[in-house]
Amino acid sequence: MALRTLLTERLGVCHPILLAPMDGVADANLVRAVSRAGGFGILGGGYGNRAWLVQESAKLGGLQMPFGIGFITWSLAKQPDLLDIALAAKPTAVMLSFGDPRRFASAIKQAGALLICQVQDEAMAEQALAAGADILIAQGTEAGGHGASRTTLDIVPAIVDLAAGRVPVVAAGGLADGRGLAAMLSLGADGVLLGTRFYASQEAAGADEAKRRICAARAGETVRGIIFDLSRNNVWPAPFTGRCLINDHARRWLGREVELLQQVERVSADYVKARTDGNFDVAAVIAGEAVGLIHDIPAAGEIVQRIVSEAERILQGQRNSSWRPAELNETAR
Amino acid sequence: MALRTLLTERLGVCHPILLAPMDGVADANLVRAVSRAGGFGILGGGYGNRAWLVQESAKLGGLQMPFGIGFITWSLAKQPDLLDIALAAKPTAVMLSFGDPRRFASAIKQAGALLICQVQDEAMAEQALAAGADILIAQGTEAGGHGASRTTLDIVPAIVDLAAGRVPVVAAGGLADGRGLAAMLSLGADGVLLGTRFYASQEAAGADEAKRRICAARAGETVRGIIFDLSRNNVWPAPFTGRCLINDHARRWLGREVELLQQVERVSADYVKARTDGNFDVAAVIAGEAVGLIHDIPAAGEIVQRIVSEAERILQGQRNSSWRPAELNETAR
Repeated sequence: MALRTLLTERLGVCHPILLAPMDGVADANLVRAVSRAGGFGILGGGYGNRAWLVQESAKLGGLQMPFGIGFITWSLAKQPDLLDIALAAKPTAVMLSFGDPRRFASAIKQAGALLICQVQDEAMAEQALAAGADILIAQGTEAGGHGASRTTLDIVPAIVDLAAGRVPVVAAGGLADGRGLAAMLSLGADGVLLGTRFYASQEAAGADEAKRRICAARAGETVRGIIFDLSRNNVWPAPFTGRCLINDHARRWLGREVELLQQVERVSADYVKARTDGNFDVAAVIAGEAVGLIHDIPAAGEIVQRIVSEAERILQGQRNSSWRPAELNETAR
Repeated sequence: MALRTLLTERLGVCHPILLAPMDGVADANLVRAVSRAGGFGILGGGYGNRAWLVQESAKLGGLQMPFGIGFITWSLAKQPDLLDIALAAKPTAVMLSFGDPRRFASAIKQAGALLICQVQDEAMAEQALAAGADILIAQGTEAGGHGASRTTLDIVPAIVDLAAGRVPVVAAGGLADGRGLAAMLSLGADGVLLGTRFYASQEAAGADEAKRRICAARAGETVRGIIFDLSRNNVWPAPFTGRCLINDHARRWLGREVELLQQVERVSADYVKARTDGNFDVAAVIAGEAVGLIHDIPAAGEIVQRIVSEAERILQGQRNSSWRPAELNETAR
């Protein structure tokens, strides 16, 4: 059995598993590890740190395997020439999230790269398709980092129905294991995009303490809101908010966002210091609702293998024999 | 292929599909239709209308098929003798939602009925298991009517892991088609509980206009909050809030709940009148996020058949050939 989908075909990969382009975490090292394992690594271009992008994309230029580079669309619009740096590395695809992709679509496609657009509602999906998106990511509110309010279970079938087979649809938000992959394939998606699960990998460029906290967090211990953006003087356009682990700082300011803003100079100075010091009681660990499913920090390649094996086992109907095709029941008797 | 699970075995039903005990909507007629089709109908005991319960449970007493009766636990605690009326109908199971089930567990089990407990977090699941629950329903925030904040994709695997095979776990919230059933089985659940999908059925005891609005609503057009409870002077314990279709009344008061409470006498008088008049611009149509998947009002039995057929097709890997087991690909060549 192999989980071949329209997505694996388009991207030329073995497994329908994409690495979310996490800002500061999805560096060339992690991208390479995911792609080597047969998934699709996407570099986290994030807010557009030019020196970092030049350095990391150069490492990927020679890769003899599929990979992508991702940007925050509204941020890329402030430094549009960063796209040229990305395209010079000859990525298989460029992923755009959070903003109007039309301005960048033709440059991406003319360079021979696929256009992946992450969307949070039907209007964004229509806009992405009109821009020529080759792949849609339907992102639910369960996702870590920035996103919107609709749940994965709500938005995935909605976007699958809207795409109607024209382009592959990838599910994102709250997914970390083979059960999630199998469930999303069952919902009609062609694959999954995972952030938090790969954050807690050996190769991820995140702080060890952040990874440790992701493993320690239980299901339900994340929160979506604007506290961490307010605290770092980061202004995002509506409807986007951010999800991170609940920590002392989040508990302190939840429901008191206006008050935080009144004291933002002091709060943000403390916040910057906390980030520098690696004090994650104040600084946010950006993570999604899947934290409850994450308990270790393996190599990224092992994560890919585990998820694929578990999903295959489930889709063959053999998991815990909780349900199975009648044929398998016959065999088992 | 048949979707046999620990749940179908325990309940003695053909299909792992449960009717949510919707207050005022899941009457004996709908319960019978779902159970006749091989699912498991559960009567909506709701807030405990004694005359209604006597009448509807009497209709079920002679049923030669499995069925259940559901209560709002904190409301049942005010009229505990209603449980005797329910048990006199010899239900296969009693379902308790929203509150501590311990007080009622022994009477239910001594009567030979199974105890089904709906839970919204891990602590409630532990409490239910300690009370002797035979089946757990893990309800996500996508659900129509009362519920809490964790998403279905988050809470279902969490409760599956917590139950660890001791009891079947049923997924609820945001589910209306075979894709949802297949996805939840893949996540490790043993079945699904559906409300809104059965509300829009011929047999459901809801207003035609409410059913029409469920069909017309698009994905994303529901909201969870306390406006409709405030408007009908209905006080629910934390952490429970209610989800319904967004209508003029909800749009008017969203974010102005305190102001609503200041004017509650007038608002609730208008609200009562709107319910009497069937004016659903004001009165709430209680519905979940699955509304985007619901476009017609078939017989309940047809709904069961459709969902089962679609889920079976998906789990055999044949849906749109978007993914399939290699074996099936071989056959197809």
